[in-house]
Amino acid sequence: MVEMRKPIPVQEAIEHLWSHRQQGSTEYVSINDCDDRRLGENIIANHAVPPFNKSPYDGFAFSAEDTFQAGLENPIEFEVVEHIGAGQVPTIRLGQGQATRIMTGAKIPEGADCVAMFEVCKTYEKDNKSCMSIKRRMKAGQNIIEEGSEVIEGEKLIDRGTLINPGVKALLATFGYSKIKVAKKPVIGVIATGTELLDVDEILKPGKIRNSNAYMIESQILRAGAEYKYFGKLADEFEPSFQTIKQALEEVDILITTGGVSVGDFDLMPAIYEELGASVLFNKVAMRPGSVTTVASNGDKLLFGLSGNPSACYVGFELFVRPIIQHNLFSHKPFLKRIKGTLADDFPKPNPFTRFVRNYITYENGKVNVRLAGMDKSNVVTSLAHTTGLMVLPGGTRGFKSGDEIEVLLLNDSEGQLEF
Amino acid sequence: MVEMRKPIPVQEAIEHLWSHRQQGSTEYVSINDCDDRRLGENIIANHAVPPFNKSPYDGFAFSAEDTFQAGLENPIEFEVVEHIGAGQVPTIRLGQGQATRIMTGAKIPEGADCVAMFEVCKTYEKDNKSCMSIKRRMKAGQNIIEEGSEVIEGEKLIDRGTLINPGVKALLATFGYSKIKVAKKPVIGVIATGTELLDVDEILKPGKIRNSNAYMIESQILRAGAEYKYFGKLADEFEPSFQTIKQALEEVDILITTGGVSVGDFDLMPAIYEELGASVLFNKVAMRPGSVTTVASNGDKLLFGLSGNPSACYVGFELFVRPIIQHNLFSHKPFLKRIKGTLADDFPKPNPFTRFVRNYITYENGKVNVRLAGMDKSNVVTSLAHTTGLMVLPGGTRGFKSGDEIEVLLLNDSEGQLEF
Repeated sequence: MVEMRKPIPVQEAIEHLWSHRQQGSTEYVSINDCDDRRLGENIIANHAVPPFNKSPYDGFAFSAEDTFQAGLENPIEFEVVEHIGAGQVPTIRLGQGQATRIMTGAKIPEGADCVAMFEVCKTYEKDNKSCMSIKRRMKAGQNIIEEGSEVIEGEKLIDRGTLINPGVKALLATFGYSKIKVAKKPVIGVIATGTELLDVDEILKPGKIRNSNAYMIESQILRAGAEYKYFGKLADEFEPSFQTIKQALEEVDILITTGGVSVGDFDLMPAIYEELGASVLFNKVAMRPGSVTTVASNGDKLLFGLSGNPSACYVGFELFVRPIIQHNLFSHKPFLKRIKGTLADDFPKPNPFTRFVRNYITYENGKVNVRLAGMDKSNVVTSLAHTTGLMVLPGGTRGFKSGDEIEVLLLNDSEGQLEF
Repeated sequence: MVEMRKPIPVQEAIEHLWSHRQQGSTEYVSINDCDDRRLGENIIANHAVPPFNKSPYDGFAFSAEDTFQAGLENPIEFEVVEHIGAGQVPTIRLGQGQATRIMTGAKIPEGADCVAMFEVCKTYEKDNKSCMSIKRRMKAGQNIIEEGSEVIEGEKLIDRGTLINPGVKALLATFGYSKIKVAKKPVIGVIATGTELLDVDEILKPGKIRNSNAYMIESQILRAGAEYKYFGKLADEFEPSFQTIKQALEEVDILITTGGVSVGDFDLMPAIYEELGASVLFNKVAMRPGSVTTVASNGDKLLFGLSGNPSACYVGFELFVRPIIQHNLFSHKPFLKRIKGTLADDFPKPNPFTRFVRNYITYENGKVNVRLAGMDKSNVVTSLAHTTGLMVLPGGTRGFKSGDEIEVLLLNDSEGQLEF
């Protein structure tokens, strides 16, 4: 009755899965709705920044050459022939002895090649003319932000697949992108299986628990940048389960089920994969929690059969589903960022298989400390709330002690890395 | 003409501001819409987890006492009287020599106090009865997840102000919260000032630049967990600017303007604060960039006058506006998380005032490295795209070298810290 499955290493499971990855499509959204989306194209500078020589200060613009004789005892006088604020355009080409009063960000007038700040100039009226004088020599180019000094026209600014943060959005606005080509969010179907599941608004009954996995996964899907579609929860009965899953597959890009993948008497997913004609990529991974994590491909769609156990479900999503979503969204670094840190708690349990332990990070004097997020029983849901990372404890190791160096996968990081 | 303002230290500016902080209100949202919101109440366990003694494995439940004579040469036989999956409720109270076939997660029947996995049991039919035998002694409580072993009824699980992540959402579902009391998002008004500003969809004209600050700040507002309301851009003309700002104040909780706070000829904000009767908390901060950052209070509303310079605007928001928003949302740790790290690039510029330099973090062997996000001219917008932190270089210091220890404020962190 108990089917024997051969566990494969996590790395090998990811390789199987990776050969079935697909990139998604793109769509245009208003710049007002582009936050936290991933770019669907490279962003190229369509003009230089700044697009003209401009002033970094409030002051006077003139030709530096006019001040070559200036000195503490020899103030040089200028007639102020124009007064321009940012956004105003200078209209007068300056001749010798002429200056323009200019505000921060304004365009440098023709005939000027430097700006002197107000603080070093003296202003006065003389013969009904506005004048200023300066006692120091200026250099050509002094206090001028040159056209193109920040960005040259045609320069690639940001790669396709980059997450749009406030700085990226500022760039998009600067270059006039009012509609942004972004990666279209893949739709991830979610189905929870298990006769023991109650809806969130049902009263607790003997032997039953509320469905928390579906809500958790929906939140993980959103964090990964995709959209979810929930198809409800299924009792452990073959025919209705099969029909719902078959129908759901038509409506989504990727389908996640929770529960029913083990080898218990009521675990229906193996039979459903068979009836669908789906090809099972793996159904046993040498890891804890989540060893029963199963992935199958059905045509061009992936079915992720995650464990019904909340922690195993959580880990299965982050390890296997999230990188597939990131790749779909054109991310160049689809895998969870993995860093080294120092364990700050004891973890005495031996690890016959690779173990992923919920943790959070603290920083101390420039060093990364890794702390356990709570009791690590695979059925504990509460510790998930404080989790920001997953410690990776290699299989075949004994327990770990405070002070040991370990590796951590970061869950709140959006940069990612190239390989698992 | 040039008004002399006395710069105050950043810490002092934050203290002035902090005395005007306000907490917001709460609202209920569906559990489907609660992601990334902050909790508006403490979450208390309204039942124990698990709510009943349950099985961690597929196997047989029975009384451990029945196996006291078991041994390799002395298998003990049980009659299997019931078969229950997860979610099914045991109906038979077990007597001596009776066992229940039980699936992972199912409730332990009365009369049983242990579970033996399938692997250690032998199953067979005998006299038309379903039987199993076991050759090992079991202990009372063995392989039983006890009621309340994860969470006791009445236990506080999560604090008000906590950000709802996938783990928190799972907890909310577990305890039957279908409507979630969350912090209501404050509405932050955004107005860009400056005659030089074009709309994002306008063609570049001489002397003009596109308005990027408003879009950047909107994105920063969303990252901080609030809502924005954009009131457009204003030319540097007093009366229409004053009217728009006065009207906007009626419609928002907090108002941000960009530009017009310096002492240039076209900087209108000081006069507008005066006409509003707003009390200016500070208008010069001993920091770069963003020294002209101004905060005023008008009744119970705060007006943030950020610099028109993109980088100064960005820094001003993160240092001053973001903590005020976090406090409004009940965060217990409203300030940016500050960690130590090792500078991995040279920064030769001296720092007469506290300087906030855009950076990103890399990790190397458990250590935090800090790299410059790009050229650090306060007018450079492109480096903002790669920024994930702000290095804090104390005022009165010379340049910094690769290898120096420095402090960094993290921008993508949602945990925060208690004080600036």
